[in-house]
Amino acid sequence: MLVYLDGTYLPRAEARVSVDDRGFIFGDGVYEVIRASGGCLFTADEHLARLERGMRGIGIPVHADCARDRLLAIAEHLLRENGLLEGEATVYVQVTRGCAPRTHHFPAPECAPTVYLSAARFTPPVQIRVVGASAITHPDIRWSRCDLKTLNLLPNVLAKQRAVEAGATEAILIRDGVVTEGASTNVFGVVGGELRTYSASNYILAGITRGVVIHLAAELGITVAERPILAEELPHVEELFITGTTTDVLPVVQLDGRPIGDGRPGPITNALGEALARRMGMGLLAHRA
Amino acid sequence: MLVYLDGTYLPRAEARVSVDDRGFIFGDGVYEVIRASGGCLFTADEHLARLERGMRGIGIPVHADCARDRLLAIAEHLLRENGLLEGEATVYVQVTRGCAPRTHHFPAPECAPTVYLSAARFTPPVQIRVVGASAITHPDIRWSRCDLKTLNLLPNVLAKQRAVEAGATEAILIRDGVVTEGASTNVFGVVGGELRTYSASNYILAGITRGVVIHLAAELGITVAERPILAEELPHVEELFITGTTTDVLPVVQLDGRPIGDGRPGPITNALGEALARRMGMGLLAHRA
Repeated sequence: MLVYLDGTYLPRAEARVSVDDRGFIFGDGVYEVIRASGGCLFTADEHLARLERGMRGIGIPVHADCARDRLLAIAEHLLRENGLLEGEATVYVQVTRGCAPRTHHFPAPECAPTVYLSAARFTPPVQIRVVGASAITHPDIRWSRCDLKTLNLLPNVLAKQRAVEAGATEAILIRDGVVTEGASTNVFGVVGGELRTYSASNYILAGITRGVVIHLAAELGITVAERPILAEELPHVEELFITGTTTDVLPVVQLDGRPIGDGRPGPITNALGEALARRMGMGLLAHRA
Repeated sequence: MLVYLDGTYLPRAEARVSVDDRGFIFGDGVYEVIRASGGCLFTADEHLARLERGMRGIGIPVHADCARDRLLAIAEHLLRENGLLEGEATVYVQVTRGCAPRTHHFPAPECAPTVYLSAARFTPPVQIRVVGASAITHPDIRWSRCDLKTLNLLPNVLAKQRAVEAGATEAILIRDGVVTEGASTNVFGVVGGELRTYSASNYILAGITRGVVIHLAAELGITVAERPILAEELPHVEELFITGTTTDVLPVVQLDGRPIGDGRPGPITNALGEALARRMGMGLLAHRA
């Protein structure tokens, strides 16, 4: 597989960064994962706009080599060169503040950001979407700028690992008594017939897929209330699902070992899952490489 | 300068890690900075024990090549080979979970941790210790496992940068109305004649130097109350200082543009600073390379 690193296309095994890269030393960078299907990059504009907001949010200058058009062209090149114009794939984009002698504060003079992109084959988890996934609840111990998609992912890593150890797919995070989101997904639930998800704020990474699902729900006449599900409401939730770039709409049918509803994907979940699949299949949200 | 990376000593400029290193992708690792003076590594046992606790805390297996004795031998080799047996130096030690295809959860099968050490000349900021430093207050927006010395340092980076932009040395972090610690230091203050610092908990990284200073205070007959300074008490604090591996005891004489006490380092601060300097100068806490 060819990847892109700082101006060069090279084999993944040869792609190496300095030990002085602030990504390696401080997790000082931002990233995106973009879905591709048949050479079409879905919601690439939204992902690259969020990457740029993240760069500005942590004070990484947006140079020409990490501008959106340039990153989009690199992503498309990687899909082509790696034989990923057919079938499903993902493109990973990461920008760090670059290499400099270690200081907590930003390097002065400013250093060139490190720009890294890779593409990989992706196999959608079709079977689990049909039967539904299981999840655990887990304390949300993250910082309070979860709206920035940064490389400081250790709390997410630890929560996801806890889920895997419990035989589950996702850890659903609870902060101050409410569901915020999953370790790498957004969470939606139906409570008393109302579809709810945590509002876009500094306490969640409001996903691109989350936004598409809210839009599709409106098209289907389903109102989404952007207010949190309380932890104490979870035993009574009628449907639960998670969304994400590689998750799409994934029903959660078991939480902490107990069934959600009747233990099968619910009608609102299925309707939104099908609507998203149609929208992606139609390529309506996509750039063609 | 020679550094150590995964079993090899090599020039710093050649020390590179894979883009698949989980340090680069997730900030998935822990680190330490150890002070050396005249070839003596100060409190190396305490630093390496904390590193090991951190590895266990985030589930990185402690293999032979990141065991304490091995890391100490590498640190001493780096001091020798880099001509750092005279004068002041620092040794940086970092262990990440290693390289694997990107998944939030831990790789399975387990991968070998990435072990990186470097040594560098260090110039103590002597002048600022005499006149005292300035600091700003800043919201503590970090996660709630600040007791783990991990690579997820972006909130610390952003707070320190804010301090530098304000012409200050450190950002003193406020969580829930109390002083927790600095962006890369611990904070002590004298309030109503009582020396206080935040208690060792999940909300601070209880520094090795913090521990030494508490011990030295006891020797000097000064009681340290391990309870927090309230943000509302800051205008009335009589003395304020920060501690750290490269900070030693640094008086803070100005906070948010206003003087602390009479704007000069106070007697308790000076006594502890001198006691620490004596202890380090005597090499009582040190391993000799």
